[in-house]
Amino acid sequence: MPTVLAEVTRGDIVESIHHGVIVVAGTAGEVVAAIGDPEHVAYFRSSAKPFQAVPLVESGAADAAGFTPAELALCCASHHGEPGQQAAVRAMLAKLGLGPEALQCGIVLPMDEAESARVATGEIPASPLHCDCSGKHAGMLAACAHLGYRSDTYLDPDHPLQQQILSVMREVMRLPAEQIARATDGCSLPTFGGPIRAFAVAYAALAAPEQVPAGAGREHAAALNRLRQAMMRHPENVSGSGSFVTDLMALGEGKIAAKSGAEGLICLAVPARGLGIAVRVLDGSFRAHAVIVLAILEQLDLLDAATIASLRERFPPAIRNHNGHHVGDLRAAFRL
Amino acid sequence: MPTVLAEVTRGDIVESIHHGVIVVAGTAGEVVAAIGDPEHVAYFRSSAKPFQAVPLVESGAADAAGFTPAELALCCASHHGEPGQQAAVRAMLAKLGLGPEALQCGIVLPMDEAESARVATGEIPASPLHCDCSGKHAGMLAACAHLGYRSDTYLDPDHPLQQQILSVMREVMRLPAEQIARATDGCSLPTFGGPIRAFAVAYAALAAPEQVPAGAGREHAAALNRLRQAMMRHPENVSGSGSFVTDLMALGEGKIAAKSGAEGLICLAVPARGLGIAVRVLDGSFRAHAVIVLAILEQLDLLDAATIASLRERFPPAIRNHNGHHVGDLRAAFRL
Repeated sequence: MPTVLAEVTRGDIVESIHHGVIVVAGTAGEVVAAIGDPEHVAYFRSSAKPFQAVPLVESGAADAAGFTPAELALCCASHHGEPGQQAAVRAMLAKLGLGPEALQCGIVLPMDEAESARVATGEIPASPLHCDCSGKHAGMLAACAHLGYRSDTYLDPDHPLQQQILSVMREVMRLPAEQIARATDGCSLPTFGGPIRAFAVAYAALAAPEQVPAGAGREHAAALNRLRQAMMRHPENVSGSGSFVTDLMALGEGKIAAKSGAEGLICLAVPARGLGIAVRVLDGSFRAHAVIVLAILEQLDLLDAATIASLRERFPPAIRNHNGHHVGDLRAAFRL
Repeated sequence: MPTVLAEVTRGDIVESIHHGVIVVAGTAGEVVAAIGDPEHVAYFRSSAKPFQAVPLVESGAADAAGFTPAELALCCASHHGEPGQQAAVRAMLAKLGLGPEALQCGIVLPMDEAESARVATGEIPASPLHCDCSGKHAGMLAACAHLGYRSDTYLDPDHPLQQQILSVMREVMRLPAEQIARATDGCSLPTFGGPIRAFAVAYAALAAPEQVPAGAGREHAAALNRLRQAMMRHPENVSGSGSFVTDLMALGEGKIAAKSGAEGLICLAVPARGLGIAVRVLDGSFRAHAVIVLAILEQLDLLDAATIASLRERFPPAIRNHNGHHVGDLRAAFRL
């Protein structure tokens, strides 16, 4: 039976509900706490990006291209396509002697509302730089260039870079390859399916990779530490202005790394506690993420009360209507 | 236990699920078919609009203002704020000697993407005409003018017009007033909570009001017939270009009246069969509405196969990614 993670109230009644799964895992791969079924299968989608960037770092490609920490953060990002983020991805491609046309992520309106409106009115042309995955694709192009792989077929699941990435996924998810479902992501790259528990286990490896066993990510410790630190130092590049993921990392000041994924996923790494956390809303929505994640951090005492209060101010549970009236609330409906 | 109405697949697995309730009711108030719990409580939100317009018609206010069928459709609408729809609401207000500043619905970006982008870039100013409820509010202003009610307090639940509307709701929902939960809608008007069954029962009255018992809407038959016909003759005004509600009514050619409501509600009236149908997705999302409603119409043989096929072509179950690849599907997961 599906478990309710969050409720949307209006007046005196619960108007809508969001079912889901929460898994908190430790570096031994153990489930520390859970709500709902940890074995529920989903896709890792964009929350897998830090792991998809491991070969880029380990191969020396990131250093060969001269990628900065801010640029590494973009390789792990679902960015909003803000003008600065677009310029940064363009600069990454320029370091490889490439232009935006090398990106095979496809074209989609940027998540940044002002920029999206400029595209919609024809003020600026649509570009693959707008796609939230363009930094990840730029990183893969850098890896291909450095490793001597073909750069025109990098989307192919059988491409050697994708095979290396699958190998990393197998290790950090602690699943044999045949238990990882493979499908095509929004940006046409392979995405990885498995129990939500495996996403939390992988984020425990991102949190404290030296503490996981051999074969479960420990060999990738240097790359995982570097990528996690890049994300936490440049949260503005991992998502976008005013987003929960960006503000959680910015206000969390090194305590939390966070990355969302399509269809209602958000994953957290808590380095000081060696914990990985995966939250998946089963209907695919995002509106309850802040309320759910702040409840988890509070219940497990993973973030100080003042920071949680600041984040609640920025992402208030109150639902206001067109005239600004307080008509209802979003609230967490679980206790870990 | 919540029931799955629709599944979102990607590759070989079900990625996301939408729980919900479907109720099909007849004019005797009976439940003809249901999926999930018909007694699950929700709010009627914008699906209540045809009933909220009953006093406007019955009082003679609509005729006194010279409202056309296209304008009556706007009174029952969650319109997209397309330029033509804005102009039509402005014209309705002009018939009352009023301007857009008389609307108390609040200001929100229009659902029409091109128009929304023009507001976001500052090309045109924000206006209460953009709000999807502006036609309903214009209708209420017409009723106030004709009935000699104050027009500055029409949002108040105790305003005589709102009391008349509550009386209509009580009749068509077949609930005593104390069983109707009241809360504030997005546009600041009262909204009505009750079992989802009551929404289907009300839509059976909208479908065939002469067939319902006295006290359950029959006394409002003339107004309900006129409003339903206005919606079906001007589906372009009830929602907007390319929307499922508009196309369902346009292609359904008099067989179906449809109206969506916030938080994942859609209600249908089927005049020839005297049926009302309410579909509520419990997480509040809309993306599965077309797939769910077309499955209902097919399973209950309420619409011919050719029309259903045309609608499936316009609202395909296939999920395509940024490069247009078919990566998954939306599918109905119930049998009535």
